[in-house]
Amino acid sequence: MDYIELIGFLAAILTTAAFLPQVYKTWKTKDVSSLSLPMLLIFFVGIIAWLTYGFLKNSPSMIFANSITVVSSFLLLFFKIKYGKK
Amino acid sequence: MDYIELIGFLAAILTTAAFLPQVYKTWKTKDVSSLSLPMLLIFFVGIIAWLTYGFLKNSPSMIFANSITVVSSFLLLFFKIKYGKK
Repeated sequence: MDYIELIGFLAAILTTAAFLPQVYKTWKTKDVSSLSLPMLLIFFVGIIAWLTYGFLKNSPSMIFANSITVVSSFLLLFFKIKYGKK
Repeated sequence: MDYIELIGFLAAILTTAAFLPQVYKTWKTKDVSSLSLPMLLIFFVGIIAWLTYGFLKNSPSMIFANSITVVSSFLLLFFKIKYGKK
């Protein structure tokens, strides 16, 4: 692996790790009041676009990071729709 | 601009746009209680790494997106440190 991908993977690990506590917190508390549905939808579509871009640019770090984040953001969207109804 | 960069810019606009309401909300309400300082720090360092990666990969969309997000995440970090003391 070249040093460019090392920086990419460092970035991927850091930004992905920063996102996970939010998913965990929302799952535990079921508090979705401060999460905005349009924001979550826009973000989810954006991550799918980044993942596509990562494949087209042959970027292992982008594919790695966005594969995890697409799941995280889907979960937040799912929690918002599920718990937001109450 | 080729179609790969078009997808990249679409991704950049979507994920950046999803992030801005959080910055605005925090600025208006000064409520930083639900923001975690370690998470903000890790995310900020991660975005700097993504920006570096974008330059090294010659990716205009990554440079564009992360230049905006580095400012947004710095502002959240600044608000957390400033308003978190109260």
